[in-house]
Amino acid sequence: MNYKMLSRINGEILLMEAVFMIPPLIISLHDGEHKAATAFFYTIGITILVALLLIAISRRAHRRFYAREGLVSTAICWIVMSLLGCLPFCISGEIPNFVDAFFEIVSGFTTTGASIVPNVEVLSRGILFWRSFSHWVGGMGVLVFLLAIVPTSGRDSGFTLHILRAESPGPSVGKIVPKMKETAKILYILYVILTVANIGFLMAGGMPVFDSFCTAFGTAGTGGFGVKADSIAGYSPYLQNVTTVFMILFGVNFSCYYLLILKKFTAVLFDEELHMYLGIILGSVLLITWNLHGFYPTIEETLRHSFFQVGSIITTTGYATTDFDKWPSFSKAILLALMVIGASAGSTGGGLKCARFLLLMKGLHRNIRHVLNPQRVQLVRVNGHTVDEQVITNTNSYLAAYMVIIIVSTLILSLDEFSFETNFSAVLCTFNNIGPGFGLVGPTGNFSQYSSLSKLIICFNMLAGRLEIFPMLALCSRSTWKRL
Amino acid sequence: MNYKMLSRINGEILLMEAVFMIPPLIISLHDGEHKAATAFFYTIGITILVALLLIAISRRAHRRFYAREGLVSTAICWIVMSLLGCLPFCISGEIPNFVDAFFEIVSGFTTTGASIVPNVEVLSRGILFWRSFSHWVGGMGVLVFLLAIVPTSGRDSGFTLHILRAESPGPSVGKIVPKMKETAKILYILYVILTVANIGFLMAGGMPVFDSFCTAFGTAGTGGFGVKADSIAGYSPYLQNVTTVFMILFGVNFSCYYLLILKKFTAVLFDEELHMYLGIILGSVLLITWNLHGFYPTIEETLRHSFFQVGSIITTTGYATTDFDKWPSFSKAILLALMVIGASAGSTGGGLKCARFLLLMKGLHRNIRHVLNPQRVQLVRVNGHTVDEQVITNTNSYLAAYMVIIIVSTLILSLDEFSFETNFSAVLCTFNNIGPGFGLVGPTGNFSQYSSLSKLIICFNMLAGRLEIFPMLALCSRSTWKRL
Repeated sequence: MNYKMLSRINGEILLMEAVFMIPPLIISLHDGEHKAATAFFYTIGITILVALLLIAISRRAHRRFYAREGLVSTAICWIVMSLLGCLPFCISGEIPNFVDAFFEIVSGFTTTGASIVPNVEVLSRGILFWRSFSHWVGGMGVLVFLLAIVPTSGRDSGFTLHILRAESPGPSVGKIVPKMKETAKILYILYVILTVANIGFLMAGGMPVFDSFCTAFGTAGTGGFGVKADSIAGYSPYLQNVTTVFMILFGVNFSCYYLLILKKFTAVLFDEELHMYLGIILGSVLLITWNLHGFYPTIEETLRHSFFQVGSIITTTGYATTDFDKWPSFSKAILLALMVIGASAGSTGGGLKCARFLLLMKGLHRNIRHVLNPQRVQLVRVNGHTVDEQVITNTNSYLAAYMVIIIVSTLILSLDEFSFETNFSAVLCTFNNIGPGFGLVGPTGNFSQYSSLSKLIICFNMLAGRLEIFPMLALCSRSTWKRL
Repeated sequence: MNYKMLSRINGEILLMEAVFMIPPLIISLHDGEHKAATAFFYTIGITILVALLLIAISRRAHRRFYAREGLVSTAICWIVMSLLGCLPFCISGEIPNFVDAFFEIVSGFTTTGASIVPNVEVLSRGILFWRSFSHWVGGMGVLVFLLAIVPTSGRDSGFTLHILRAESPGPSVGKIVPKMKETAKILYILYVILTVANIGFLMAGGMPVFDSFCTAFGTAGTGGFGVKADSIAGYSPYLQNVTTVFMILFGVNFSCYYLLILKKFTAVLFDEELHMYLGIILGSVLLITWNLHGFYPTIEETLRHSFFQVGSIITTTGYATTDFDKWPSFSKAILLALMVIGASAGSTGGGLKCARFLLLMKGLHRNIRHVLNPQRVQLVRVNGHTVDEQVITNTNSYLAAYMVIIIVSTLILSLDEFSFETNFSAVLCTFNNIGPGFGLVGPTGNFSQYSSLSKLIICFNMLAGRLEIFPMLALCSRSTWKRL
């Protein structure tokens, strides 16, 4: 293990985090919220100190950087970043309990949006901004951001590759352009443009500036922390529809947007994952609209709420315009299925990902054909290209790990004696980085009633979900720490 | 597709079924239950007629018999057998609705034990016997039985192999002896010996003869149909403990017993699946006993009920000595996890199977090692032998199919608007061939409230679970019916 390099990356990430805390500090100062301002001031100081210390001890790091370094440094970066990122909540006294504060910031960075705060409207604006901003920071990935801005001199060429692989969502990293650094830059530029457009559309609809920024951060990162107790329900239908559209847009694979810029329209038009993603959204909305017949007074309202909730759940954002826990069983079951499937690979959304689901189905179909005709060689193709067998094996292993983590987590959460629906949906919706589930953790509930043990298990799940399991498993695996 | 051979196997299976209906006919005649006796009489007549017709049209069948013939004929045999096997229920008027009767017999043959009968004590003894006997017939497999008794002359050598593969539970068929026909015979002899021992122990404890036979059939097939409304709860603690022991014995891979007869003790002692199976049982019992602290008056009673319920659920039998739906959430969550894992491969139990779970975990571990050290070739070993990659691929595909079937089935069952816990556990416990679930389908409930559509979906799931998915998928796959 290249410990020096690990320490250096952590130092750089923390410096970046300190910079990211300046906007909420300014807001707190502007509002005259002295406690919050002091909290941010102290945290920035501590973070810079730790960062410089880590960078100081990392001098003369050798350049060897393998897959396991990539996996482990990604996992550790996210944990360290969260440990320091939760300090403003504790120091300001707005979320005094450390486990709760840690839960809240992990939920923020992983873009889950599950909260332990019963009423967010009592929090100060600086703290609210930091909460929502953490979604935006975590959405596209902090290490990807680092790659985009920091010069790569003095690093192994494997560095960028292994980091991008470990942090980017999806079964295989689509290099948009041959150079990884350029790919990271393009991703972030597209991300900024879409976020700015979202803020513009919200402000044009009369949403206050502060709300627009926070809502857009939650939408862009597909996080779901709101600044109102009733999430998005209190805003006008126009603002709800704008949010629906942008949630769905942020759930699309970003390489599709890059292809659009390059005017490669046919490639986008025939993208199998995009078909699947949009098809599932449309199908779910139609089924829910049919099932909700008579639930809302008008068809416009029914369509608006179904589109919003479907978009919010499949992209794993977790905003709500209505208490969908009260919907009939069939509609709730559809939402649960969407929780599992999730958004597209290469988007800011979580879940199993459409691409991975597509691979699982194609792998299954191939396997049936193989069982029926063992003598023929059967290949799996996506978008006309043959898929590497290793990618299929990884996807299958991913599903096995997914299942085991869900079973074990549900078991541990069950120690708290809530209903099976509450516990199971709590695990599903945090592991898939969605946010609210059903029952006690539904859109009107929160996670505060769970024990500290359960909260830490949920934190592990949120990180495992955001980093797609393997970095967290690598962190816990004996062979990572073995000398080679 | 070799249609003539397909027709011949179906004919032979039906002849066998007609013979199996003679004991319940005799019981009905002895009890003077004229309606039931007439029903069995007519059904036997119809079954023999259909069987002879099928055999007549299958003359001069060619000998080619491939994997797809094996899969499809297994699936079709089970469906045809159920279509005729449910006639006694309908004709006698004891379960007048055809869908309900079909549900009941599919539940019987697949050894699920889920019932639509609110109170079994109103059924006549002939019908009760047939219900329980169907578990015994389905437990080890009807086609395996056919292989054991029918001469193989005039058949392709692939015949026995492909049939045994399609019907036997587990990720890979362990040939006990090189000749498939001998393997089938040994399996059935062991099965009969264990069943007779079970009946003996029950009768020694004072259980009435009729009850002993029916209870032992349900235990041997890991089915779970009882002859009392309260399942096994009304019998003495001794009888409950005997049933616990035999349920666990029938959940062991039968090749372990054969190895014991051959005095290969070390092979059994170091069998990884056996370790896992017994380890999970012991661990679950300890955790549930701890969790149930104070729920029952004495520690003896707590241990007895935990052992019974754990044995009943992991072997997918589904008997109950207590209403475990009232247990605390943690204990219920453990039972749900056991539903998914299931018994050993090569036993009469259902579920994912310990062997498959072991392979999934080893495959996942191998994959993590591969990600960490991509340059090394990593092999998966079970009991010291390297596992064929195709077996691992099949296991992974199995999990993908498993997940999709569970999601889709839960969605369709949700149309009936029961709680998520009821619907989800109904799917889990029928697909894994267990029987009772939680909520409305708990140990004191039944499946009668579901719509006919849901009942048919459950029938599909029970068959898919018993035949391990692939035969049912092959039946629905286009490439099966394509001319080669």
